[in-house]
Amino acid sequence: MSVTFPEGFLAAGIAAGIKKSAAADLALVLNEGPLDVAAAVFTSNRVQAAPVQWSRQAVADGRARAVILNSGGANACTGPEGFADTHRTAEHVGALLEISAQDVLVCSTGLIGERLPMDAVLGGAMSARDALDPGADAGADASRAIMTTDTVPKTVEVTTPSGARIGGMAKGAGMLAPQLATMLVVLTTDAVVTADVADSALREATRTTFDRVDSDACMSTNDTVILLASGASGIEVGAAELAESLREASAALARMLVADAEGASHDVHVVVTGATSEHAALAVAREIARSNLVKAAVFGNDPNWGRIVSAAGCVPEEVAPFDPDAMSVHVNGVQVCREGGAHEDRSLVDMTPRETLVEVDLGAGEADADIWTNDLTHDYVEENSAYSS
Amino acid sequence: MSVTFPEGFLAAGIAAGIKKSAAADLALVLNEGPLDVAAAVFTSNRVQAAPVQWSRQAVADGRARAVILNSGGANACTGPEGFADTHRTAEHVGALLEISAQDVLVCSTGLIGERLPMDAVLGGAMSARDALDPGADAGADASRAIMTTDTVPKTVEVTTPSGARIGGMAKGAGMLAPQLATMLVVLTTDAVVTADVADSALREATRTTFDRVDSDACMSTNDTVILLASGASGIEVGAAELAESLREASAALARMLVADAEGASHDVHVVVTGATSEHAALAVAREIARSNLVKAAVFGNDPNWGRIVSAAGCVPEEVAPFDPDAMSVHVNGVQVCREGGAHEDRSLVDMTPRETLVEVDLGAGEADADIWTNDLTHDYVEENSAYSS
Repeated sequence: MSVTFPEGFLAAGIAAGIKKSAAADLALVLNEGPLDVAAAVFTSNRVQAAPVQWSRQAVADGRARAVILNSGGANACTGPEGFADTHRTAEHVGALLEISAQDVLVCSTGLIGERLPMDAVLGGAMSARDALDPGADAGADASRAIMTTDTVPKTVEVTTPSGARIGGMAKGAGMLAPQLATMLVVLTTDAVVTADVADSALREATRTTFDRVDSDACMSTNDTVILLASGASGIEVGAAELAESLREASAALARMLVADAEGASHDVHVVVTGATSEHAALAVAREIARSNLVKAAVFGNDPNWGRIVSAAGCVPEEVAPFDPDAMSVHVNGVQVCREGGAHEDRSLVDMTPRETLVEVDLGAGEADADIWTNDLTHDYVEENSAYSS
Repeated sequence: MSVTFPEGFLAAGIAAGIKKSAAADLALVLNEGPLDVAAAVFTSNRVQAAPVQWSRQAVADGRARAVILNSGGANACTGPEGFADTHRTAEHVGALLEISAQDVLVCSTGLIGERLPMDAVLGGAMSARDALDPGADAGADASRAIMTTDTVPKTVEVTTPSGARIGGMAKGAGMLAPQLATMLVVLTTDAVVTADVADSALREATRTTFDRVDSDACMSTNDTVILLASGASGIEVGAAELAESLREASAALARMLVADAEGASHDVHVVVTGATSEHAALAVAREIARSNLVKAAVFGNDPNWGRIVSAAGCVPEEVAPFDPDAMSVHVNGVQVCREGGAHEDRSLVDMTPRETLVEVDLGAGEADADIWTNDLTHDYVEENSAYSS
């Protein structure tokens, strides 16, 4: 059902002709209210695509009614003309829905540096408006229209303890898939919440889920996570409850993104414990998850603790204090490294399951953090080296 | 000629039986004097192999007479027993050469986590001592005995403006080659210099050469660069002259390491200009050089400026201030990106030469820095995923 699971939302996903193939490439999500609460988190990349620049200012007041999302082009690095295209899109959708352009958020995903085919975008917006529907199929259509290199649509439905509903759709897999596979997420809820609560809950949910996918700590130019609240359930939801349910929905979507990373043969969960702080644990987890040598070893079904330990050792002391001689490493439950040296024989580790668990205990404190990434495979190289503009 | 090019040095390279193959695996370099000046720079990785721990304290007084280097095992993550092995090696070589163990530096390269076969190491040390020779062949033998995944030995000879000689040998390619391909470098000179001058000159030379190879800013557990000065030429060399000639020798060796990176099909030179500081330029260069998407694009002969710009955009504002809309990118001399957007057609870029020049102008200042790396290829994945302990 996706974004139409909660009450008060309509969705559509159609083929507007933006993509050269005939595939669906334009999605529209409308919040019918009574509330028009909105929150969004955007990429930390300083190169911000036109839609990100637009949406950032449009959602700053905590209010929005609609999101228009296109695949087939990122509209990034397209200068003032590209921004004008996004502005025009928001104005057009606003007019079609009889709402302010400032209440229309815009997301784009695809190739960098090329202008969007605006005839297709604007014409498609009208078709999408005409196709808006509150049903499950419409939600599914929208989730497919935002796909680029995804092989499956990613959707989720969660009900909060108080009975409010949360729906969501996502695309992309961090930086792993080709063309920077922008991560786009739209979460909807019929809970009654204020803009402030929605904003803080979204940020907290994103922090430990979407922000923990992949290893580069380097987002694309277009990454966007949006939350829309209609209040249509009439159920008031507190900040903690909303944050927890959003986290649950986000964690499920984030896990789906990792599982669909193109070219990957393993989903690698790096869990660092025994750190002096969460920040320290995260720095070590990212360094391990970012290591090509670690990820290539996983691809080769090799529980190479030496490379894991060496990657951890590259984190500066001031960022993550720990004694290398106190480090312990488990791979898929087998303690291959203890007190900084060899322990159980690596032949005891079964690396064949897709999910690989790498646990590193720094032995320096009580904090922990985790990162999800994928292995470095031939398919990854193949897909990311084929000519792409 | 390598390390025997300057006066006052003997070298040897033999097969001690450390490597399972019959290949040469033990090198010895002896400084006959009259000076016994020494300086060294070690890995910044906090996981330090036993030989690094030993050599760091042995060279702290600015003096050393010999270096013993083995391939076939890194002696890293081997605990107190591993350190005892290194200590024993230094004592043994010291006894053989009739010098103090504290004047013997030790380097090792190979697999992490395994103890060295000490019978072979100690027995081999005697054979190496017996093979010591001042000639060109001995220098060449030593340069071969330190090779692991290198396909060719790397040596250099430089004469300073005042006529003093510098010789050198190197192995490894940063983090690119399998098994963490430790970088080991031994530089020798017959210049008359003090320990302080040698130390500062070596650090300055290393900073803009060896430290600029590869992209991970993540060194192996064993990286070591050593400088020995015999003073045998009788030629006093000032700090600036030594630093410049050392830089020249180091740059040549560093370039050879990049060119021999296993599995690579392109040597990528990332040059960032127009930065507010060298630190800022370096941060941007490293982020670009570290990007798998950039390196995969190079492998595919694709001058993908969008990925380059996106990588630069991941550097925090406080580290490297610049306006993304002012960025310019040239690939092999063609300006594919100007003012943050598309410019010359990418089809104009000839990516077929092995050397790829990526120039990024941030338009924010006058500082610059460069990094050398390689492309991400199928061979890299293959070599780094094959089972290795």
